Amino acid sequence: MFSTVLVANRGEIAIRVVRACRELGMRTVAVYSTADRDSAVVRLADEAVHIGPAPSKRSYLAIPAIIEAARRTGAQAVHPGYGFLSEDPDFAEICEDNGITFIGPPASVMQRLGDKAAARALMEKAGLPVLPGSPGAVATPVEAREIAERIGYPLILKAVAGGGGRGMAVVRQPDALVRAFNETRAHARAVFGDERLYMERFVDDARHVEVQVIGDRHGRVVHLGERDCSVQRRHQKMVEEAPAPNLPPERREEMCAAAVRGAEAVGYVGAGTFEFVLSPTHEFHLMEINCRLQVEHPVTEMVTGIDIVREQILIAAGQPLSVRQEDVVRRGVAIECRVNAEDPDREFIPAPGLLTEFIPPGGPFVRVDTHAFPGWRVGPDYDSLLAKTVVWAPDREQALARMDRALGEFRVTGEGVRTTLGFLRRALAHPDFRSATHTTGLIGTMSAESVTRHQPVRAAEE
Amino acid sequence: MFSTVLVANRGEIAIRVVRACRELGMRTVAVYSTADRDSAVVRLADEAVHIGPAPSKRSYLAIPAIIEAARRTGAQAVHPGYGFLSEDPDFAEICEDNGITFIGPPASVMQRLGDKAAARALMEKAGLPVLPGSPGAVATPVEAREIAERIGYPLILKAVAGGGGRGMAVVRQPDALVRAFNETRAHARAVFGDERLYMERFVDDARHVEVQVIGDRHGRVVHLGERDCSVQRRHQKMVEEAPAPNLPPERREEMCAAAVRGAEAVGYVGAGTFEFVLSPTHEFHLMEINCRLQVEHPVTEMVTGIDIVREQILIAAGQPLSVRQEDVVRRGVAIECRVNAEDPDREFIPAPGLLTEFIPPGGPFVRVDTHAFPGWRVGPDYDSLLAKTVVWAPDREQALARMDRALGEFRVTGEGVRTTLGFLRRALAHPDFRSATHTTGLIGTMSAESVTRHQPVRAAEE
Repeated sequence: MFSTVLVANRGEIAIRVVRACRELGMRTVAVYSTADRDSAVVRLADEAVHIGPAPSKRSYLAIPAIIEAARRTGAQAVHPGYGFLSEDPDFAEICEDNGITFIGPPASVMQRLGDKAAARALMEKAGLPVLPGSPGAVATPVEAREIAERIGYPLILKAVAGGGGRGMAVVRQPDALVRAFNETRAHARAVFGDERLYMERFVDDARHVEVQVIGDRHGRVVHLGERDCSVQRRHQKMVEEAPAPNLPPERREEMCAAAVRGAEAVGYVGAGTFEFVLSPTHEFHLMEINCRLQVEHPVTEMVTGIDIVREQILIAAGQPLSVRQEDVVRRGVAIECRVNAEDPDREFIPAPGLLTEFIPPGGPFVRVDTHAFPGWRVGPDYDSLLAKTVVWAPDREQALARMDRALGEFRVTGEGVRTTLGFLRRALAHPDFRSATHTTGLIGTMSAESVTRHQPVRAAEE
Repeated sequence: MFSTVLVANRGEIAIRVVRACRELGMRTVAVYSTADRDSAVVRLADEAVHIGPAPSKRSYLAIPAIIEAARRTGAQAVHPGYGFLSEDPDFAEICEDNGITFIGPPASVMQRLGDKAAARALMEKAGLPVLPGSPGAVATPVEAREIAERIGYPLILKAVAGGGGRGMAVVRQPDALVRAFNETRAHARAVFGDERLYMERFVDDARHVEVQVIGDRHGRVVHLGERDCSVQRRHQKMVEEAPAPNLPPERREEMCAAAVRGAEAVGYVGAGTFEFVLSPTHEFHLMEINCRLQVEHPVTEMVTGIDIVREQILIAAGQPLSVRQEDVVRRGVAIECRVNAEDPDREFIPAPGLLTEFIPPGGPFVRVDTHAFPGWRVGPDYDSLLAKTVVWAPDREQALARMDRALGEFRVTGEGVRTTLGFLRRALAHPDFRSATHTTGLIGTMSAESVTRHQPVRAAEE
């Protein structure tokens, strides 16, 4: 077992990992950029190492600095959180080369699944339903046009190296394809340093449902059920819930079984997520596989009682899974809302600043994962996530009432700071969400309704 | 169903009730004393009414002011929380006379159970194991001496009107009886306005285990399992857990069945608690019955998933219980620690003051119920409870690790403010607690060990 673990991340997830380590009796080492020198994790961890200036490439993505910090502090393992280096097989490999355990899947698995196109092919072979798409990366606009004719419109262009909702574009008409292809490729080159794109059918009115799996080093894989993550803005999730509502039980079982089959096919180790697109007729197709902890893992924890980060650490230490599939009992409903420092009235642009007041909600069945505190300055350098508010209840109706209560009592004040709190309450109160008939188009629908509502009605009256 | 509920209490429990009401879609009215005018519940409730100055008799115990506040705000129901008026049958009766529903048992039930001696007799008749004791109130020291000869020493003197650990005295020797009798009687007269005392056998090395019951107005009673509340200082609970550890399953079932039988015998309605004393050989005897919500109700909520305050409100509105006995499924282990603004090194004297920093713990399976916030002044007028920290985990060992982690990250700072945080961590780390062999004597043992530890060892070396 590890005695010291280094957390190669920042924000709420760094604290999440510190908490799991501490409960396992392990010492923790935080790493931080200059911008994060006053962050909560620096105070909470047993030790903290400065690794560079604010730009991620020079700190949270700076592999040599992180390896050096691990070496210096005697850390035997590194937890990468999500984002940053969490899906970088090179980092996993370099850790192992330095005798440090990477808490995540083996580099070889990440390599195979990190290439979205290759992963698609592998999963298709394992019998998972995969959307019609390009057999691999698409080299040119001409090739894109050929493939598009075969798979049909609408379609989606995705960066092979993309993730987290970035590096993708939906194309609805043939005449928009070439421009979208060139733009997305340029974006992918700039952001991921990898311009390769692949294409697949885009499902309208779809839901995003994903299955959490965990696998150990002894060849055993279990699933922890599914989550619905359909409430998104700019392909980024805002609200997640478990179990997915309005999903026939047999379809749920099929999706979970497919995820386990896929994980077994690739020899998956650690915590991973199989993301599916679910059509209005409850057909599902695999979208992608995430080789890391997800932001929304708490909803699964709340319904299963299983601490996923703890499992990750124990798996990395070589222990067998703590549960068999039949021990995974799901109970009630959990919902997570991501509270961001953003202005919902101005297309969710970041609205950072100094927090003069920060009082998260509490009480029964409310969980808050946050790195913010009164006096913390939300900076412009990183994403705008302030806090994840998670609730649990015996049923969905109570969970919705509880979340509305929790968001309503959350107090965040700061010069220039705006939050998504009010927007989230409106989203959860939307008839489509309440009836669980919402799709990934919900926020677009809300914006359209809002415009309609704010238009003067004079014209009709005249 | 009620549209408006008045909360006749303060502190964390007032907020707890506001939360439950809000989740049920009910408007809430807070009442507050002058000392509490800046309290969190004043801000959180939909409406707040000032009812008098700081002394409880002129505010939180001032029945006319509270009834007037309910009348003025259109509240159809009153939730009394715990303490204050929660077990006052007169208050319940006056509410009903004014057409306001009292959220609690009917006045008649409270009357019968509020008289500890009469309650003992009633429960004995219902077949519950009751400690040998006086058949009713003991009028004189002479009578006390006669009864003491029959029940034997050690014995305990208890105020008929007492509760919450106050108005009781353990007597170990015949020659200490008269003085203890007179002192306890004077205390009871001064504090409760009722000098009557009763006596019962005192069990050494005992544990305090209590069973939560809920009953509806349709004659149905279920139990929600038991809690161990043995960690006490000055007969006041500091740590509670569910289920009670180190308790044979058949004994657990017997205790829960006894509580249901007792509740049925008295026609119990609402949430109530049957407190038992458990001997080292796992014999149990009824101590008392509390006709109200307990401070420690969250541990039961965490293992059952049932929101007890919600149940109270729905029961008071005439609804049947939301669960049958077979639906009450207990899962995992929950522990609550009461974090007080007290100085553990100076016999837990209150250490109030202005909170300059107040950051409660968060993350997986941690619940905090608190009314405190940065800038709140903990005053000398009320009890010193700052926050209840509650954790859940699949097993006791993980729950202990989680609680230690949670208490360790709790930050409370203020001029003159001291807390029980460090003391609680030491109590939970004590070998007796870890092995679940502790009794109500744990804190006394810890104090004795601390004295021994701090004594110079020179003598032995010389």
